[in-house]
Amino acid sequence: MGIKGLYFDGELNYREDLIQPVPAAGEALIRIRLSAICNTDLELMKGYNNYQGILGHEFVGKIEESNNPELIGQRVVGDINIGCGNCSFCLQGLNNHCPYRQVLGIQNKDGTFAEYITLPEVNLFSVPDAVSDQEAVLTEPLAAALEITNQVHIQPPQKVAVIGDGKLSFLITQVLALTGCDLIVIGKHQENLKRLKEFAEVEYFQEIKRNNQFDCIVECAGNEAGLQLAEELIKPRGTIVLKSTYVGSPGFNPSGWVVNEVTLVGSRCGPMDSALRLLEKKLVKVYPIIGRYYSLTDYQEAFSTKFPYKVSFDITE
Amino acid sequence: MGIKGLYFDGELNYREDLIQPVPAAGEALIRIRLSAICNTDLELMKGYNNYQGILGHEFVGKIEESNNPELIGQRVVGDINIGCGNCSFCLQGLNNHCPYRQVLGIQNKDGTFAEYITLPEVNLFSVPDAVSDQEAVLTEPLAAALEITNQVHIQPPQKVAVIGDGKLSFLITQVLALTGCDLIVIGKHQENLKRLKEFAEVEYFQEIKRNNQFDCIVECAGNEAGLQLAEELIKPRGTIVLKSTYVGSPGFNPSGWVVNEVTLVGSRCGPMDSALRLLEKKLVKVYPIIGRYYSLTDYQEAFSTKFPYKVSFDITE
Repeated sequence: MGIKGLYFDGELNYREDLIQPVPAAGEALIRIRLSAICNTDLELMKGYNNYQGILGHEFVGKIEESNNPELIGQRVVGDINIGCGNCSFCLQGLNNHCPYRQVLGIQNKDGTFAEYITLPEVNLFSVPDAVSDQEAVLTEPLAAALEITNQVHIQPPQKVAVIGDGKLSFLITQVLALTGCDLIVIGKHQENLKRLKEFAEVEYFQEIKRNNQFDCIVECAGNEAGLQLAEELIKPRGTIVLKSTYVGSPGFNPSGWVVNEVTLVGSRCGPMDSALRLLEKKLVKVYPIIGRYYSLTDYQEAFSTKFPYKVSFDITE
Repeated sequence: MGIKGLYFDGELNYREDLIQPVPAAGEALIRIRLSAICNTDLELMKGYNNYQGILGHEFVGKIEESNNPELIGQRVVGDINIGCGNCSFCLQGLNNHCPYRQVLGIQNKDGTFAEYITLPEVNLFSVPDAVSDQEAVLTEPLAAALEITNQVHIQPPQKVAVIGDGKLSFLITQVLALTGCDLIVIGKHQENLKRLKEFAEVEYFQEIKRNNQFDCIVECAGNEAGLQLAEELIKPRGTIVLKSTYVGSPGFNPSGWVVNEVTLVGSRCGPMDSALRLLEKKLVKVYPIIGRYYSLTDYQEAFSTKFPYKVSFDITE
């Protein structure tokens, strides 16, 4: 008897004949409860990374099998990067940069749009009781937002801009606001900007003054226009944090980066435990990204639901 | 009676009717001894920065007039950035990023391919006796090389690459070698690479293994191919230092910078006093860039002389 899940092999299909994964040494078997759709899933479906397998990597689930009896029954979220454990990156704790890594639902490892997954136990983080499933399923993107303050020292008096007003921007904006910095979000969608006003100043893309006014800019617009605007707005010696991945190689102006001694920092996955702490203390709010929940069989409707709805598959039943 | 110099107003001309500059408050009058041609001069002659005036910014000279009698007769080099003194950058000591700055021979300030210049006395650095004019004229580009270690912490065990084997590369390579790092220069000119072997490993552009092997890469190739190669060679979490300015906006791959969490750092002018210390202690050698010296009247020949000759105008006579 197979398990249910969404399998991608050039096209996405709901299947009930998928093989239930068997935990390898050090792995646990996890029953998925909620699993959310990420922009990366859409990119993978366009051919990014040549992925084939079960999609999905944002999840909350319950441990059903483990060699450690204490773990069984625990509600968990998971770090999606599975390092080899032996290379120079893994030995530094940078399993997310292991050149031989598997990545849950992204690279050589079946993902979470299914009833079951396996993950190494070292990748799992117990979810505190105060954090609901609906909150916990956002731990992974919230950790990605925290990777910004993990890599770059944002100083409280600094002027900081977030370019982009999508779902990730809601998490990034809240994380940056916690530093006490002078924060503004620049976006193109009035509806989203209105909602972001709870956390920061907001400004419409067309109306922002094109002068060098920001010490730090986080670019999460999801396309090249974000970095192009950041080039116009960054102060000399400022830092631009890059969060967007997109296809194509657009034109930029590295000579300007040299003259103004600008720093650019690419930023990806972040610390899951810090994200859980913020959720537990209710320091980051998930409600502004209004959740919608679908069953796996309704995947076509789920994938066509637009922002502001953060869409998850409910696989508890 | 005018002074002699090379004036650019769309075309470069030798003139003997230029007006001798008069020191403003806080400025000294300096008689130029040697002044070297920089790549930036060639870019300015192509229209970069819309500059009009006397060209030149790498120099060594002697103070002839000053309100401070102790300065008169001193042999000096000079920081080329003249800040307003009042803005937030100037107040942090970052006159090179003052938005209102003049830049010697580059922006709103006549340069050094002439018998005389004026510069604020705070911009001047006395040249130690052990440093010859031929060495001192390279203080400014050597300071630009030192801006790399000023901005980025190069750790001794790191694998570091310099991409580019031009004149600036000779100075950058020597500065980086002083850190004790595992250093390799990647270039296209066998002749230059042969000469660089005194300071580092060398490898021909076509033959370098295209894998992610370097912790830090300094890109000074002077064109977009340098950064494109750096993208292929940088380790995850590595740092690419950008030294090249060139016209155009080539295609790059910011998504790769995000996934590998690469940092890019633009780098321009550096600490003149540190450069003089290295020259005084003979820790950096200028002879590998064999000097050639011309009079101002021979400017056409001077500008057509090719590498490996670092060309200076001798204005002592």
